[in-house]
Amino acid sequence: MRIAVDAMGGDHVPEHPVNGAILAARELDVEVVLVGDEAVLRSHLTRAGSPAGIKIVHAEQVIAMDESPATAMRGKRRSSIHVGARLLRDGEVQGFVSAGNTGAVMAVVKVIVGSIPGVDRPALAVVLPTETGRAVVVDAGANIEPKSRQLVQFAVMGQHFAREILGVERPRVGLLSIGEEAGKGNELIRTAHGMLSEAPLDFIGNVEAGDLYGGRADVVVCDGFTGNILLKASESVVEMLRALLREEFSRTWGGRIGAVLARGAFRRLRQRVDYEELGGAPLLGVRGLAVICHGRSSPRALRNGVRVAMEYAAHDVSQRIEEALATLRPVARAPDGDPTDTRA
Amino acid sequence: MRIAVDAMGGDHVPEHPVNGAILAARELDVEVVLVGDEAVLRSHLTRAGSPAGIKIVHAEQVIAMDESPATAMRGKRRSSIHVGARLLRDGEVQGFVSAGNTGAVMAVVKVIVGSIPGVDRPALAVVLPTETGRAVVVDAGANIEPKSRQLVQFAVMGQHFAREILGVERPRVGLLSIGEEAGKGNELIRTAHGMLSEAPLDFIGNVEAGDLYGGRADVVVCDGFTGNILLKASESVVEMLRALLREEFSRTWGGRIGAVLARGAFRRLRQRVDYEELGGAPLLGVRGLAVICHGRSSPRALRNGVRVAMEYAAHDVSQRIEEALATLRPVARAPDGDPTDTRA
Repeated sequence: MRIAVDAMGGDHVPEHPVNGAILAARELDVEVVLVGDEAVLRSHLTRAGSPAGIKIVHAEQVIAMDESPATAMRGKRRSSIHVGARLLRDGEVQGFVSAGNTGAVMAVVKVIVGSIPGVDRPALAVVLPTETGRAVVVDAGANIEPKSRQLVQFAVMGQHFAREILGVERPRVGLLSIGEEAGKGNELIRTAHGMLSEAPLDFIGNVEAGDLYGGRADVVVCDGFTGNILLKASESVVEMLRALLREEFSRTWGGRIGAVLARGAFRRLRQRVDYEELGGAPLLGVRGLAVICHGRSSPRALRNGVRVAMEYAAHDVSQRIEEALATLRPVARAPDGDPTDTRA
Repeated sequence: MRIAVDAMGGDHVPEHPVNGAILAARELDVEVVLVGDEAVLRSHLTRAGSPAGIKIVHAEQVIAMDESPATAMRGKRRSSIHVGARLLRDGEVQGFVSAGNTGAVMAVVKVIVGSIPGVDRPALAVVLPTETGRAVVVDAGANIEPKSRQLVQFAVMGQHFAREILGVERPRVGLLSIGEEAGKGNELIRTAHGMLSEAPLDFIGNVEAGDLYGGRADVVVCDGFTGNILLKASESVVEMLRALLREEFSRTWGGRIGAVLARGAFRRLRQRVDYEELGGAPLLGVRGLAVICHGRSSPRALRNGVRVAMEYAAHDVSQRIEEALATLRPVARAPDGDPTDTRA
C-alpha cells in the first residue's frame, strides 16, 4: 500500500512530516510518498540515513497555514496539497495525510479528487476516546451551516467508519442535541431527527454532550460549527486539567512523590486521550481518503495518520459509503447533477 | 438579606434543598426562605433541631423535573417555583435559588418577575474555571436560536456579571466561534461580530473553544444551543478523565500509593473545577435574580447558589445591566413594547 504525506504542511516542516514518514515506513507495512520540495526533502532523508520505503514526489509551491483556502486553491496549483490530491485521484496512492491548512486541504481534495455520488460535501470525522472505547464525531468542522439532509449523509458515513475502522458491528448513531426528546434542539436538529429516524441506521435519537464521553453512541452526528466547538472545548479541558493537576501536585511533598509513583498511570491515560494516538481527522465522502492532522502534529501523530489512511483503504470504506448512499431515500442524497438544489 | 430556596426542586427533595438552606443560614449572613409543602418542611427542620435563620413559605404544588415547562407554567400556579418567583417579584426576597426543572424556572421567573427593559429574553450564565481564574459563559442554554442583537444583550449582561461577581474591572468579552478572524463562524456569529464591535464593551473579537479554558476572555458569548453543548461536553470530559485516572491508578502498586499521597492535590483540583463550588447558573436579564442549580445538586451546591444570589443582589447587578442596556444603540436593544419585532 502507498500513502502520500504532505511534507510542507504543518507548524514544523519539513521535520515532523519527514520524521513521521520515517516512523511509518519503519513500523507499518507501507510505502510513504513525501510530497514537497525535492531538494530539501532529499537532504533531510540523506541525513536520516536514506531510510527504506520512502519516495519523494516534487511540489514546488507551499500553501501557508493562514492562507485563504479559496485563494490558495486557485492560485497555487503546484502546491504540495494539490500534488498530493492528484496522486490520490490518479490511484498512485491510496491515501493522503496532511497537517497543513485544513480549509485548503478540504477544498483542494474535494475539487481534485471529487465527492462520492450522493454526498453534498465531505465531512471531517474525529475519533474520541470514551469511558468504554471510542466514538466518531461527524462533522468536526468542514460544514459550518449544513442542511438536514447532509446530517443524514454524515450519519451514513460515520456508520461505515465506525464499523470498518472502530470495529463496531452495529454502530449506534446519535444526533447531538441539548435534550434527549425528539423535539429538543434547533430547527436543523429537529428536521434531521425525522429524517434519521427513517434512514437505514441504528439511530438511537438525540444524545447530549454529557453522554458523549460515557460512550452512549458510536457515531455522533452534528453540524461542523458545533462539532468544532465540542472538540476544541474537550481538548482545552484536558489541557487545563493537566496544568492544574501539575500545579496542585507540585504544592506538597506528598503530591510530588505521588506524581512520580503515578507516572505510569498518567502515561497510559495520555495514550488513551491524546490526539497524537488518534491519527488525525479523516475527510469522509471523497473518493479515496485524505487525513487531516493538527498543524502542531508530532512525527508520531503523523505516523498514526498514515495508519488510519491504511486501515481506511484496506477496508474500502469509500466504496461502502457509496453503496450505502445509493440506497438512501432521494431526499437525503445530494441531488445528482444539480448542486443548486436546495431541498431540506 | 433574604434569599428563597425552592425546597421541592431537584433530584433529592426536600433533603438537599433543606440541608443546603441550613448550611447557608449557618455559614452566610442570610435569612433563607424555604418554599414548599409546609408540613413536610416543618418536620424536616424540627428533626434538624429547628436551625435559626430559616423561614418556610407554603407552596402546595410541585413541578416535576420532566414536566413540560409551558404546561407547568400555566397549570401549576401554586407550585414552589411560582411562589418563589412571586416572592422575588414582590421584593420579599432578593434572590431565588432552584434546582428544579430548568425550563420551568426560566419560563415562570420570566413571566412573573419580568425582564429588564432592553432585554429580549433572559439568558443563563455559567461560571467556568480557567487556568488563570474564572470566565462566564452567556448563554448557557436558555435561548436555542437567538437573534444577533440578543448576543449583544448577552455580552452586556455578562460584562456586568464579570465585573461585579468575578471582580474583573474591565472584562474582556469574546464571541465564541470556530476561528479568530471576523469572518469565521455561522451567519449568527458574523452578524453579531459587527454589532459587538460597535457596542460599548471591551470586545476582543472571536474566541475559539480551545482558548476558553486558557482564560483568554472573561465573558464568552454564544447561543444557548452551543453553550449547552460546550458546558455538558466539558463536564463530561472531566468525568471521563476522573474515571480513567481512577482505573489507571488502581492498576499498579505505585499508582495506588501515588493516588493516596496525591489525595490533597486531587481534592484541591476538584474544588477548582467542580460545579458544586461554582454555585449554579444565574438567569440574567430579569428584575431580581434567579439561580438555577443542577437537578442533582448537593446541599453544598445549593448553599453556594444562595451565596451567588447574595453577591448578585449586594452588587445590584440587575440595576447595572438595566443602565447599560439603556445606552445601547436601538438595534441591539429589545424593542420597547413590541415583542413581535424581528429586527436583526
